[in-house]
Amino acid sequence: MGNTFGRLFRVTTWGESHGAAIGAVVDGCPARLPLSEADIQPDLDRRAPGQSTLVTQRKESDTVRILSGVYEGQTLGTPISLEIPNQDMRSGDYRDMQEKYRPSHADYTYDAKYGVRDWRGGGRTSARETAGRVAAGAVARKLLAMRHQVEIVSWVSAVGAITAECDVESVTQERVEKTPVRCPDLARAEEMIRKIEAIRKDGNSIGGTITCAIRRAPAGWGAPVFDRLEADLAKAMLSLPASKGFEIGSGFAGTLLTGREHNDPFYMAGDRVRTRTNRSGGVQGGISNGETIYFKVAFKPTATIMTEQQTVNVRHEDTTLTGRGRHDPGVLPRAVPMVEAMAALVLADHALRQHAIS
Amino acid sequence: MGNTFGRLFRVTTWGESHGAAIGAVVDGCPARLPLSEADIQPDLDRRAPGQSTLVTQRKESDTVRILSGVYEGQTLGTPISLEIPNQDMRSGDYRDMQEKYRPSHADYTYDAKYGVRDWRGGGRTSARETAGRVAAGAVARKLLAMRHQVEIVSWVSAVGAITAECDVESVTQERVEKTPVRCPDLARAEEMIRKIEAIRKDGNSIGGTITCAIRRAPAGWGAPVFDRLEADLAKAMLSLPASKGFEIGSGFAGTLLTGREHNDPFYMAGDRVRTRTNRSGGVQGGISNGETIYFKVAFKPTATIMTEQQTVNVRHEDTTLTGRGRHDPGVLPRAVPMVEAMAALVLADHALRQHAIS
Amino acid sequence: MGNTFGRLFRVTTWGESHGAAIGAVVDGCPARLPLSEADIQPDLDRRAPGQSTLVTQRKESDTVRILSGVYEGQTLGTPISLEIPNQDMRSGDYRDMQEKYRPSHADYTYDAKYGVRDWRGGGRTSARETAGRVAAGAVARKLLAMRHQVEIVSWVSAVGAITAECDVESVTQERVEKTPVRCPDLARAEEMIRKIEAIRKDGNSIGGTITCAIRRAPAGWGAPVFDRLEADLAKAMLSLPASKGFEIGSGFAGTLLTGREHNDPFYMAGDRVRTRTNRSGGVQGGISNGETIYFKVAFKPTATIMTEQQTVNVRHEDTTLTGRGRHDPGVLPRAVPMVEAMAALVLADHALRQHAIS
Amino acid sequence: MGNTFGRLFRVTTWGESHGAAIGAVVDGCPARLPLSEADIQPDLDRRAPGQSTLVTQRKESDTVRILSGVYEGQTLGTPISLEIPNQDMRSGDYRDMQEKYRPSHADYTYDAKYGVRDWRGGGRTSARETAGRVAAGAVARKLLAMRHQVEIVSWVSAVGAITAECDVESVTQERVEKTPVRCPDLARAEEMIRKIEAIRKDGNSIGGTITCAIRRAPAGWGAPVFDRLEADLAKAMLSLPASKGFEIGSGFAGTLLTGREHNDPFYMAGDRVRTRTNRSGGVQGGISNGETIYFKVAFKPTATIMTEQQTVNVRHEDTTLTGRGRHDPGVLPRAVPMVEAMAALVLADHALRQHAIS
Repeated sequence: MGNTFGRLFRVTTWGESHGAAIGAVVDGCPARLPLSEADIQPDLDRRAPGQSTLVTQRKESDTVRILSGVYEGQTLGTPISLEIPNQDMRSGDYRDMQEKYRPSHADYTYDAKYGVRDWRGGGRTSARETAGRVAAGAVARKLLAMRHQVEIVSWVSAVGAITAECDVESVTQERVEKTPVRCPDLARAEEMIRKIEAIRKDGNSIGGTITCAIRRAPAGWGAPVFDRLEADLAKAMLSLPASKGFEIGSGFAGTLLTGREHNDPFYMAGDRVRTRTNRSGGVQGGISNGETIYFKVAFKPTATIMTEQQTVNVRHEDTTLTGRGRHDPGVLPRAVPMVEAMAALVLADHALRQHAIS
Repeated sequence: MGNTFGRLFRVTTWGESHGAAIGAVVDGCPARLPLSEADIQPDLDRRAPGQSTLVTQRKESDTVRILSGVYEGQTLGTPISLEIPNQDMRSGDYRDMQEKYRPSHADYTYDAKYGVRDWRGGGRTSARETAGRVAAGAVARKLLAMRHQVEIVSWVSAVGAITAECDVESVTQERVEKTPVRCPDLARAEEMIRKIEAIRKDGNSIGGTITCAIRRAPAGWGAPVFDRLEADLAKAMLSLPASKGFEIGSGFAGTLLTGREHNDPFYMAGDRVRTRTNRSGGVQGGISNGETIYFKVAFKPTATIMTEQQTVNVRHEDTTLTGRGRHDPGVLPRAVPMVEAMAALVLADHALRQHAIS
Repeated sequence: MGNTFGRLFRVTTWGESHGAAIGAVVDGCPARLPLSEADIQPDLDRRAPGQSTLVTQRKESDTVRILSGVYEGQTLGTPISLEIPNQDMRSGDYRDMQEKYRPSHADYTYDAKYGVRDWRGGGRTSARETAGRVAAGAVARKLLAMRHQVEIVSWVSAVGAITAECDVESVTQERVEKTPVRCPDLARAEEMIRKIEAIRKDGNSIGGTITCAIRRAPAGWGAPVFDRLEADLAKAMLSLPASKGFEIGSGFAGTLLTGREHNDPFYMAGDRVRTRTNRSGGVQGGISNGETIYFKVAFKPTATIMTEQQTVNVRHEDTTLTGRGRHDPGVLPRAVPMVEAMAALVLADHALRQHAIS
Repeated sequence: MGNTFGRLFRVTTWGESHGAAIGAVVDGCPARLPLSEADIQPDLDRRAPGQSTLVTQRKESDTVRILSGVYEGQTLGTPISLEIPNQDMRSGDYRDMQEKYRPSHADYTYDAKYGVRDWRGGGRTSARETAGRVAAGAVARKLLAMRHQVEIVSWVSAVGAITAECDVESVTQERVEKTPVRCPDLARAEEMIRKIEAIRKDGNSIGGTITCAIRRAPAGWGAPVFDRLEADLAKAMLSLPASKGFEIGSGFAGTLLTGREHNDPFYMAGDRVRTRTNRSGGVQGGISNGETIYFKVAFKPTATIMTEQQTVNVRHEDTTLTGRGRHDPGVLPRAVPMVEAMAALVLADHALRQHAIS
C-alpha cells in the first residue's frame, strides 16, 4: 500500500534504485488522448541527474518506454505502463549503506517497518523513485493542457537564504529553463548557482523552496471537506523526498494579516467572477475559484554530505559514517519537474472528478 | 466523494450547518475498545462555539450520541455512527448569504461546482462540519492511547505576530487548557487574549498557527512514496477550514540550514535507536523513527468581518456586503481539538496499516 | 471496513438490529437531483417486515429521514445522511442468541472475527441492515431514472422448485406488486404463496431465486478487467444476506451450449447496433452493450426454523437450540427491493464513472 | 480505473495482447516472504496457451520477470512489478477484427465505451490479460501457504453436460494435473477430452464449470455487509473472461431445500467448533467459519468459432464474419489457474484485513 495516488486518474509507481527498472502504471486516463514517449521524455530529462554540476552526477539516460495503453499514438483508456530501465548501478559505492544507517535518510525507518531493505543506493527510498511520478505526471499534464488549457509552471524560489520574488501569473517555463538552477529571476539565479557550487565543493548540501503556479484551472475543481484541492496538493508535495513544508496562497505569512487585510474582494470582470487580490491562492473552501492556484514547497538540505557523522549500525552499535560516492548538493533544480508532476496528478484527478458529477 | 478519510480507520462525515444534524461514521475501528459518549464529549466541548469571548457566540450544546457500533461499553468492530443534532438554527442572521458571495468564503466556489448550495450558515462549508471529525478523532485517539500509549497534544503557537515557543516534548493538555486561547506559554497567552479581544471589538479577525506533538508513536508507522506519514498529516491539516500551510520538523526554517547543520545524528540510548536532534520531526522517508512527531499549521484570519466589503451577488453583479450576526475573531482556540482529531485519524490509520503487514 | 460500496456513488451503511437506529450515508450523488423522503419510503415499505404472512412479523414502520445533503427538495452534492429509527426492539425474544450459536447464522463467525457481538436480533448480521441499502438504492434509482431513463425491475422467479418463466423485457413493477410473493406469473404466484404458507405453518423455511432486469442502460457502462459490470453486480448480490449464487445472461445453463448456439449475432436496428439474442445478458467484456441486463440470484432458505437443532454454545459446549420468536419462512419477497437497490447502486456508480472519462 | 483489485493486498494489471508486454504490480505484500520467479512460473505455465490440443495454439513462453520488490530472494514490502513480454504477435491473423465486431466478444462494447480500441488480438479484452493476474495470484498463494497453511485447489467439474462430482475436501492439484483437461475424475476427464476434441474439429466451442476449494482458512476472515468473503469471491470470479455465474456452498441447488434440510448443525470436534454439513460453503454472514470454502464458476463457450456469423462492422453496416486463425475450443483447462489466482488474491486481502484489526 501507499504506492498509488489518485482516485480517478490513478498512478502506481514501482521500483528500487538499483533493481532492473523502475516504472509507473497510469490507470484512468481517458481514451483518445494523443500520447507518445516524446510527451514524457522532456520532463524526465529535466528530472535526470547529471544535467549540471548543481546536481548529482549519477549517469542515467532515463529513457522511458510506453508498454501498454497507447495504440497508434492515442491512449486506449486502458492502463498506461511506463518503464525506465536502471543503468548506472554501481552498488560498490554504497557498501556502507548496508551496514550503517545514514543520518536523516530512511535506512533505519525502513528496517524498523519492514525488517529488510534493499540498501543499494537507498532502494525504494531513493529519489530515483520519482522518475516514475514524473513520467506519469507528464501524461496528466498533457491531458490538462489538451482538454482544459491548464498550464503548470514551477521554479526554484529560494536556495537557502537567497530568495527570488517572481510573479506567479507570468513566469514561463522557457524562462525557468534558462539557467540550470531553474530560477526565473536571472540575477538571483546567478547567486544561487554560486552558492550551490560553493556548498558542493565543501561537501555540504543546501535546501530551499519551489513555487508552483497552476493557471487557467476553471472554477469548481476540488471538493469540500477531506479532499480539498489544497489538501490533495499538500499531500502530493509532502510525499516528495526531502520536502518539509507546504503553503498555499498567503500561507504562513497570511497568519500575520487581519481578515480585513487578507480577504479577496470579488468583482465582475466582464461576465467572469474574479477576485481583486489572490491571497486565497486560487482555492476557497477546497474548490478552485478560477484564479491562479499557487503554492510553495520547502525542501530540506539533502542528507548525504561528505562529512564524518555520528550514527548507529544495523547491529545497533554507535559508529561513524563518512559520505562517499556521488553527492547531490541540493535537490532543488531537479525537484522542479517533480513538483509539476505531482501538481498535474492532483489536478487531472479533480478534473475527472468534476466531470463525473457535472 | 471527498467526505471520507483514511484507508483502514475510515471516517465519513455528513451534515450541513443548519440541517437537522451533523455526524460521522467510523468504519474500521477494531472491536473490544472501551468506548462511550464520555470519551468523545470533552473534545466536542473544546471545539464548541460559545466557550469564551475569543470565539464565535453561536450556542450549541453539541451533544454527541453513539447510534451504532458500541454495545455494553465496547466497540463491536462494526461502523460507529456518531450524531450531533443542530440546535441554534437562526437562519435569519444569514439572509445576505443567499444573495451575495462572501469574500474569501466558499459560497462562490460551491455554486461554481454544484450549481446549488445550502446558504444557511454556510451549509456544508461551515466549520460546524468539523464537529463530526472531532467526534471521530476522539475514537481514534482512544484507540491510540489504549493500544499504543500514543499521546497527541496541540496548542496555539502564534496569534498574528505574537509567537510562543513551547517545548514539543513536554507541553501537556492540562497546561494548554489553562487559558481560553489554548497557548501553554501563559505570558504569551495573556497577550494573545488581549489581541483577540481588540480584534473582536474592531469587527476584524486574526490568524495564527497551531503546533501539534505526537508522542510515543513507535518507529515503523507510515509508508514510503505517496502515503508518507507527513503527506497524510499535511492532507489532514490542509483539509481543515482556514488552514493555509503545514510544516513538519524543521519546516520552512530548515531550508535555511545546510545538510551539516540539519542532519539528525543517530545514537544508541540503551537498546533504542534515537536521534540527537529532531529536525526530521519524527519522520524519515515517510516513516516514523520513534522520536516525537511535531508539525505546525497556519490558519488565516477568518473571513467574516464586520466591515463593508466589495463583492458580487448570485446574479453576477457587483455589490457590497457588510458582516452581521455572530462573528468569530479567530478560529485558533477551537482549531486545537480539530488538529488533534485529524492527527489522531492519520495515526490510527497508519497503526492499523502497520499491524496488517507485520 | 467493508461497510462502504461504490467508487464514485458511494454508500456507507451503519447500524445494529436493536440499536437506536440504522442508516446510510450516500456520498457522490450529483447535485440538483430532486429528492425527498417520498422517493425513498416506498422501497423501504416493500422491504419492511410485517407486510404479509409470507414474511417475518417484526413490526417496524421503517420511516426514513433525510438528515443532510438535500435542501429545498434538491440534492446539494454533499453527503446524504439517511436514518431509520429502530422501534420494535423486543430483545427478550432473542435470549438464546446470547448463549448459543444459531446454525447457519453468523453468530459464531462474528465471535470468531471480533471476539464480541451484539447478539440482540443478530445485531449487525440482521437482514435489518439492508434497510440502509434499500434507502440508498432508492437515491441511485432516482438518479438513473431521471438522468438516463434506466429502469430496474426484479421479481421472485422461483420458490423452492416452483419456477416462473417471465420475460425480462416486459415484466413491470406494477405486475410484480400484484401479489405479496412478488412473482409476476400470477398462476405460479398462487402456488408459491400456498407453498410458503405451508412451510411457515410447519416452522420451516424455503429459498428460491430472484431475477432482475435493467433496461435502457446505454452501451459503454462498465469496465474491463476487475470492475466488469457483471463482477460488480455479482459482488453486490452476494453481499445480500442468504444469497448463495449469481448468474448473468445464459448463466449456468449457458455452459451446456456450444459457441455456435450461444453467440449473440449483431445486426443494425435502424442506426443502433443490437444483438439478435441476448445470452450475454446485456454485458460483453464487462461493458454494457445496450441490451437489457438481466441476472438471477439464488437465496438459500432462511436459517431460523422452529425445530430443535444441534449446535454449540459460546463456551464451546455441545447443546441444542429450538427456534422461538418471530420467524421468516422465506426472505424472497422482501429481497426483491434489496436486489433492485444493489443493482441501482452498481449502475449509478458506473454511470458516473463513464461520465468521468467521456 | 477498474484495473486494480484488493484493498490491502492490491494488484494492478496492465497490457494489451499484442503490445510489448503485459504485467502486474502487487502492492501490499508483506516483507520477508521468500519469493522468486520460480514461485510464479509454474502457474503461468498452467495458464499458457499451447499446452495441448484442448486449448488455443498461440505460442507464448510467458516467461515472468520480477522487476522490483524482491531483493536477495525476499520481498521488501515495496511494490512487486511482474512483467511478461509478448512474443507471438501475428497481427495479420486478426485483420477482420479491425473492421468487424466479433459476436459475443467485447469489440463493440470497447468501441462504445472508449471510441478507440487496440483490435490486434482483442487488445486489452484478450484473455492474455489474465497472465498478469495469475502471476500476482501466485504471490498471494505463496503468502497464504507460508503464513497460514491455506491451500487452494480448483478443477474442471463440467464440460458441457459431462459433469464430475469430486470431493472438495480431498482433490489434490497433483490429481488435477494428471490430464490436460484438469478434471480429477479421470473417467470423466477422458470423456471431456474426447468431447473437446470433437468440438475443436467442428470449429465450435464449449463451456463448463470450474470448482474451487480453499482449505484451512481460519474462522474469522471476511467481513460483514458489502465485503463479504463470498461477495469478493463472486466479484473475482465474474471478472474472469467468459464467466457467467458463481455459486458458493449449496448454491442454486440449495434453493430447492428447506431450512431444516439446509442448515449446518454445529458441534465440537475436540476444541474446535465445526459443522456437520457444509452447505454454507465455509462462509457464514460473509465470514469464514473454518470449514472448507468451496464454490463453482460457470464459463460460457468461447466466442471465437470457425463458422460464418452475422454481425456488423465499425461503420455500422450489416455484414458476416468467418472465424480464422487460432481457435480455442474451450477456456476451461486454462481457467483453472485463473480461478485459483483470483481466489488467492481475495483470501490474501482478507488475511491482511483480519490481521489489521486483531
